[in-house]
Amino acid sequence: MTSSRLSAVLPRLYFPSKTFSSAPNLSRSLSRSFPRFAHKMRELTTKDLNPALLNVQYAVRGELAIKAEDLRTRLESEDHGLPFGKIINSNIGNPQQKGLDQPPITFTRQVAALMEYPPLIDIVKDKWPSDVIQRAQELQREIGSIGAYSHSKGVPFVRKSVAKFIEERDGYPADPEDIFLTAGASAGVSLLLNMLITPPNTGILIPIPQYPLYTATLAQFNGVALPYHLSEPDGWKTSLHEIRDAITKAEKEGVHPRALVIINPGNPTGSLLDFPTMEEVVRLCEDHSLVLLADEVYQTNLHSPTTHPFHSFKQVVRKLNSPIPLFSFHSTSKGVTGECGRRGGYFECTNISPEVQALMYKMVSVGLCPPLSGQVGVDCMVRPPKEGDPSYPLWKQETDKTHAALAQRTKLMADRLNALPGVSCVNSPGALYLYPKLELPDKAVEEAKRQGKTPDTLYALELLDETGICVVPGSGFGQKDGEHHYRLTCLCPGVEEYVQALENFHQKFLKKYGGL
Amino acid sequence: MTSSRLSAVLPRLYFPSKTFSSAPNLSRSLSRSFPRFAHKMRELTTKDLNPALLNVQYAVRGELAIKAEDLRTRLESEDHGLPFGKIINSNIGNPQQKGLDQPPITFTRQVAALMEYPPLIDIVKDKWPSDVIQRAQELQREIGSIGAYSHSKGVPFVRKSVAKFIEERDGYPADPEDIFLTAGASAGVSLLLNMLITPPNTGILIPIPQYPLYTATLAQFNGVALPYHLSEPDGWKTSLHEIRDAITKAEKEGVHPRALVIINPGNPTGSLLDFPTMEEVVRLCEDHSLVLLADEVYQTNLHSPTTHPFHSFKQVVRKLNSPIPLFSFHSTSKGVTGECGRRGGYFECTNISPEVQALMYKMVSVGLCPPLSGQVGVDCMVRPPKEGDPSYPLWKQETDKTHAALAQRTKLMADRLNALPGVSCVNSPGALYLYPKLELPDKAVEEAKRQGKTPDTLYALELLDETGICVVPGSGFGQKDGEHHYRLTCLCPGVEEYVQALENFHQKFLKKYGGL
Repeated sequence: MTSSRLSAVLPRLYFPSKTFSSAPNLSRSLSRSFPRFAHKMRELTTKDLNPALLNVQYAVRGELAIKAEDLRTRLESEDHGLPFGKIINSNIGNPQQKGLDQPPITFTRQVAALMEYPPLIDIVKDKWPSDVIQRAQELQREIGSIGAYSHSKGVPFVRKSVAKFIEERDGYPADPEDIFLTAGASAGVSLLLNMLITPPNTGILIPIPQYPLYTATLAQFNGVALPYHLSEPDGWKTSLHEIRDAITKAEKEGVHPRALVIINPGNPTGSLLDFPTMEEVVRLCEDHSLVLLADEVYQTNLHSPTTHPFHSFKQVVRKLNSPIPLFSFHSTSKGVTGECGRRGGYFECTNISPEVQALMYKMVSVGLCPPLSGQVGVDCMVRPPKEGDPSYPLWKQETDKTHAALAQRTKLMADRLNALPGVSCVNSPGALYLYPKLELPDKAVEEAKRQGKTPDTLYALELLDETGICVVPGSGFGQKDGEHHYRLTCLCPGVEEYVQALENFHQKFLKKYGGL
Repeated sequence: MTSSRLSAVLPRLYFPSKTFSSAPNLSRSLSRSFPRFAHKMRELTTKDLNPALLNVQYAVRGELAIKAEDLRTRLESEDHGLPFGKIINSNIGNPQQKGLDQPPITFTRQVAALMEYPPLIDIVKDKWPSDVIQRAQELQREIGSIGAYSHSKGVPFVRKSVAKFIEERDGYPADPEDIFLTAGASAGVSLLLNMLITPPNTGILIPIPQYPLYTATLAQFNGVALPYHLSEPDGWKTSLHEIRDAITKAEKEGVHPRALVIINPGNPTGSLLDFPTMEEVVRLCEDHSLVLLADEVYQTNLHSPTTHPFHSFKQVVRKLNSPIPLFSFHSTSKGVTGECGRRGGYFECTNISPEVQALMYKMVSVGLCPPLSGQVGVDCMVRPPKEGDPSYPLWKQETDKTHAALAQRTKLMADRLNALPGVSCVNSPGALYLYPKLELPDKAVEEAKRQGKTPDTLYALELLDETGICVVPGSGFGQKDGEHHYRLTCLCPGVEEYVQALENFHQKFLKKYGGL
């Protein structure tokens, strides 16, 4: 007590109270450089924290993204001295962000506006399409106020809408009780990995390259990532052989493989699984008692749906009458909806016992409920206007336009990247990304080593510095030793100018490091 | 492989594919009773799952709430045979839920509607107050589309609004960089407990009674709950002596106390800390190098603010120039805002180093961003209309009405509960709850034991069966051995009828078990 009572007096000598009530800038510098108090109390440091979290890496919003934000701030001053006028965030699938401007779907937003302020119906009822009004009235009846907590699994009525959507998609029944609405797919993945991982020796099979949500969440919950490589020469095909090898290796090391993650359509690869491969995957899960985690958030991002259709794992599991436990994820953030900020999504449980679901319910109830704005977004995504509805023509026009733009940009970008020396890029039939491979000159590799960075990080940092384009180095998704990739989104509107900037930079980079 | 290939054929004999394409009811019964597949694969059971999660308990949405939902479903049929006509959910602080109908604040909802559909401005600009239009335009400029991910800590502009609110509240500077917007306060608490707990011997001091989010999240992350009892005879006062005893006990048992949770105003107690006690709490944190987690989500729920004002721990820490690491939580869900479904909130970091904040940023970036609807809600909460603004008179009228109704109901309920035999209830100066104590007849205690339930659970279950009123047994929040409490919200509109139902039930219960 004595030292504490002393400290109660001492700090005032050095930091009189009025110091704190002056300019915010001062407060900032104080809060940024803290431990000058004359007190025995230690500062909280990262050494005091859960060491599992120190291992978490999430490259999509990592070093490159943070640097891009700094450059964006610099651009605000007139004499910024940068060789570009804007930052283009190709690091994240965020279609509605400033500068990309994929427009939201009018139907969804009109319904959502009426949910926010129900009396608005009287003002717009003769101005907005009647199906918008009807949908809003129906949801208002079922939900009540969107300012209230809903059922922790989500509004029952919205879960019914989701089940109906799944039934129509797959041709097999779906039960609203098996649906959990979530704050985007990420929240569902986090819940299920937390549940499936008993530290320290639970392994989760993840594709390489992968979406870093998986490695980040595995690190957070002390799970063991069991990587299996996708085959780039075969268009990033999922190789059963690779998965089996990863299982064998894990078991030798005393790690128990509990679940298999499949991302389909792929992120970052944009690849699509064919039906026979999916059947083999399900059989493999049966053989090894694996839970299948099917990340299907890009299921409607298909650039050539007739030749490259999407099949859900739910459909395959039902067709095979397989008993494997399956969790399938979907989201309002991707597709042509692109409503990332709503934090809407769901997962469906297939072959999951009531006991396990009761545990899941208990866990989601601690977080109370998913955001109602996301739940409204899910309803509009799974029940869009139908042919004949007043909103249908505009909805069709909006979604067709977004689909076409994405397909056209993806093809153009893949073709042009492939034409560059030292670049090869698998053309993508789905999702929002390309994942080109780079042959980098030895001097670039050496320079990266000198800077303590991976070569793809060096490439991405110089790309950002030269062009303002922010991509994510392949090391954030995983790649084979000695290989270099980066992921970029196919969302930028002025694609010709954008690709030219990529091309010019690449040539310059090769010249700089003696690769041309 | 052989058994798997066999299984690929066998199940079809028992479950032909067409079985699955018939009525949803059938699908439901199939998915509910699953492991009849002739396959070696084991069903996923709770034994396969992270054992930490099995220990999670969250009574607010536990047994009572689940039973209430079942009864609500039964009420839908005409011959339900129940002695009441509706369920009253007094188990959860959810002011806008159906049947309670605390109205949302018009200003917030009009702004939110314009954020959902910006072209709406043209339609309503001559109909809605000009400050609503201006706020929406300002937020649209700063945020862009609410369908885009924001910065993972939340929109910088909204964080500035929060910092300004805190400065005006406390009289000390606040830095937007120290603010993390969250999906309700719960998401922030979860993040920080995950970060502060290094299993297996990190202890977190929690008040008893407590809001069960804390014990649930501690169980999830393998932390050790270190309970300290609040003093019921002193109006649920926080006792420094109890906290010190809990620390000593923990240290003896090899548990390292890392943080102290204070809920102020209290949940479930409704008590308010006075300034001298808060100073002592801060000194105690200094003495024991504790992180202070200040749950201040009820900071504007004050029933007699002149005699019982709220002080933030940020203010106390700054006034004392204390170096203690402090995280303070706030939310859009409570107060008179009551916007639970938006999932909006924030926490402020005080005396937290840039390194630790960088780790926190990394963790929140994995979850991408808090819901934009919640962020808009936070902005409206911390920047409500000011005197002279066109929206001010309505805002004042709406918030005054809600404050007054809550204060009046709380007092009436406490007085009437106190008048009942065997009931004592500390009157509450804040928050949304009362936590009455029950003296239960021996026969009731015996009957509970026979049923394998705690006596307060028996009481709450019978209350629900008789009246349709759903409360939470004290065992969900914690109480001394042999004591019985329950928590009820003070949100029900027809308070006279509601209290009569509580009174009648209580008399009947005492008679039934020989207590009268």
